[in-house]
Amino acid sequence: MDNVKITICYFDYNYFNVNLISLLCTNKTLRLMIPAKGYAAPKAAIPLEPFKFERREAGPHDVQVEILYCGVCHSDIHQARDEWGGAMFPMVPGHEIVGKVVKVGDHVTKFKVGDIAGVGVFVDSCRHCPSCLAGEEQYCDESPTFTYSTYDKDGNVTYGGYSNQIVVDENYTLHVSEKLPLAGVAPLLCAGITTWSPIQHWKMGKGHKVGVVGLGGLGHMAVKFAVSKGAEVTVLSTSPNKKADAEKLGAHHFLVTREKEQMNAAERSLDFIINTVSAQHQYNDYLPLLKISGTMVLVGIPPEEPSLGAVNLISKRRSIAGSMIGGIKETQEMLDYCAEHNIVSEVEVIPMNYINEAFERVIKGDVRYRFVIDMATL
Amino acid sequence: MDNVKITICYFDYNYFNVNLISLLCTNKTLRLMIPAKGYAAPKAAIPLEPFKFERREAGPHDVQVEILYCGVCHSDIHQARDEWGGAMFPMVPGHEIVGKVVKVGDHVTKFKVGDIAGVGVFVDSCRHCPSCLAGEEQYCDESPTFTYSTYDKDGNVTYGGYSNQIVVDENYTLHVSEKLPLAGVAPLLCAGITTWSPIQHWKMGKGHKVGVVGLGGLGHMAVKFAVSKGAEVTVLSTSPNKKADAEKLGAHHFLVTREKEQMNAAERSLDFIINTVSAQHQYNDYLPLLKISGTMVLVGIPPEEPSLGAVNLISKRRSIAGSMIGGIKETQEMLDYCAEHNIVSEVEVIPMNYINEAFERVIKGDVRYRFVIDMATL
Repeated sequence: MDNVKITICYFDYNYFNVNLISLLCTNKTLRLMIPAKGYAAPKAAIPLEPFKFERREAGPHDVQVEILYCGVCHSDIHQARDEWGGAMFPMVPGHEIVGKVVKVGDHVTKFKVGDIAGVGVFVDSCRHCPSCLAGEEQYCDESPTFTYSTYDKDGNVTYGGYSNQIVVDENYTLHVSEKLPLAGVAPLLCAGITTWSPIQHWKMGKGHKVGVVGLGGLGHMAVKFAVSKGAEVTVLSTSPNKKADAEKLGAHHFLVTREKEQMNAAERSLDFIINTVSAQHQYNDYLPLLKISGTMVLVGIPPEEPSLGAVNLISKRRSIAGSMIGGIKETQEMLDYCAEHNIVSEVEVIPMNYINEAFERVIKGDVRYRFVIDMATL
Repeated sequence: MDNVKITICYFDYNYFNVNLISLLCTNKTLRLMIPAKGYAAPKAAIPLEPFKFERREAGPHDVQVEILYCGVCHSDIHQARDEWGGAMFPMVPGHEIVGKVVKVGDHVTKFKVGDIAGVGVFVDSCRHCPSCLAGEEQYCDESPTFTYSTYDKDGNVTYGGYSNQIVVDENYTLHVSEKLPLAGVAPLLCAGITTWSPIQHWKMGKGHKVGVVGLGGLGHMAVKFAVSKGAEVTVLSTSPNKKADAEKLGAHHFLVTREKEQMNAAERSLDFIINTVSAQHQYNDYLPLLKISGTMVLVGIPPEEPSLGAVNLISKRRSIAGSMIGGIKETQEMLDYCAEHNIVSEVEVIPMNYINEAFERVIKGDVRYRFVIDMATL
């Protein structure tokens, strides 16, 4: 059915203090809603618990996806605990979503009922800024509409994938091959694309020596992709006991970052470093490993800002860069590449009611390498 | 005459603590020497004073240059005060050298007596590492031989351009056009190439918006080059009173970095920033000005390491990079470009005995934009 668009005008006697929320709320689209259920954090830093809520009914351009699996990303924890600020509660986290299409809108052309579909970190964007037009919606000038804990264009709060279903515009929904084990596909939607995008952007591959700092959810995908692209891959980790795993993932070398001698011997040996660490660490410890004109790409955000020694960059024309998830086009390319090359994330499948223990274990780094919720257990 | 190469073997009873200096000293080449005079810092942080010393006589591949002008670089002050550590005294600073060739060795093919020649920040390098072979000797794996305050391959300490003459291998000597005012050419050998090299490496030019942070010796050259290459240039400065100068140099826009509103309005507007500031400042203040995939290149080294917010990079795939002077080939290209496009540094020519006042004024930023010593006054 078509939407009924109603503009609601509020009289705001604090007019000059108008904020983003009230702006968004003044142009709210009312739609028919459908019931949904999931797990939500009722407030910041409180354990997640069962939660009933509503989603919009699939509009003409939407697909409705029955969620089969949802990955547990470290950022779900940051958000559920409001560690980055601005979180909205109750919050249904989850942005590594794989499921089955159960309904499509009248104008949907890319999906049909029964397709396997994926939903990642965002579900919409402005669609007209240079980044959106370039298919890099993650850098949308007006900020993409994130999959949870933000307002969508209707003015409704978005709820993520720790739930039984989700409704998303077909242009922000991905095709997933049935060839792959779907639990292992879910983390590709965030951990996968976050490491794939810099590999593609900086054209890392054959002939390059690529270091991967941190062997967690992101790092293990960086290793798989870089190896698959033909790079010579070194895993850098604080834990010597990850060596066997690094090798199993295809890494060619392993460096224990606490061993000064190993680190010194590796100076000026790498073309690229993909730095996946979001725990506190020092960029200056890794930059000397880069060759001349080498680049370290950050995909993790440490809680405190590390200092940066200009000499480490200037003396060898090195760069330190950052990269954030990927656009829809690039995410689809990654999923297709994974289907073709049989690449999935290493996962530990858990029931929904294990989520609070899972959060604690993620914080301790006690997962190899991603928890994925089996939504049949909801 | 040919060199007499004598290897001197020291018995070092602190054998296992062998250091770079003793290593270098164990393979010292003895040559005939010629007298030279200049100004030297006798010890760290003591005023420069007249100094007599010796240089090697021009060998088969050397040119002897009678120095006409030498620029005063801020790094001369850092070194003369041993602010970076490892300085050697007495020290004759100076690495922005222009002069006249007065003697050439038997095998010299690129220079003849009477030519105008330039000498920059280094006078030799290993010549066999990948950087040297690529003509990027500034990034030599074994470190280039700097023009002063280091050991050359003979094991002698190098003395810089605050002197009446210098002897340099022809392969590390530059050709300078007589068309240009030579005092204004001297600073091209460091300030010029330091800003030229990143402009070339990152292909900044037509269609790009380039910010230049700091309008000093380096910054004013960055503006001239970027404007000449067709970029739309914004000068960012803490001093509003530099606006007129920025415009005179060809800049299209001027931003006072202390004015929050101006800075906010300029967010995501620049493709590149050339950051020439070596005073204390915060990289995080400038990174938001970069567009998606924009790059800030550092060419100055602040005394303390600024912190770096990963979010500033990750959220827009920005980079922060460093660049150091340039190779011989690139420096020659810059000098030729300057001759063709009539580009020189803005200078205040001073007599040699003004050097200590000049140092004080450089520290206060009281020079527009480079002091250059007229060596006829020595």
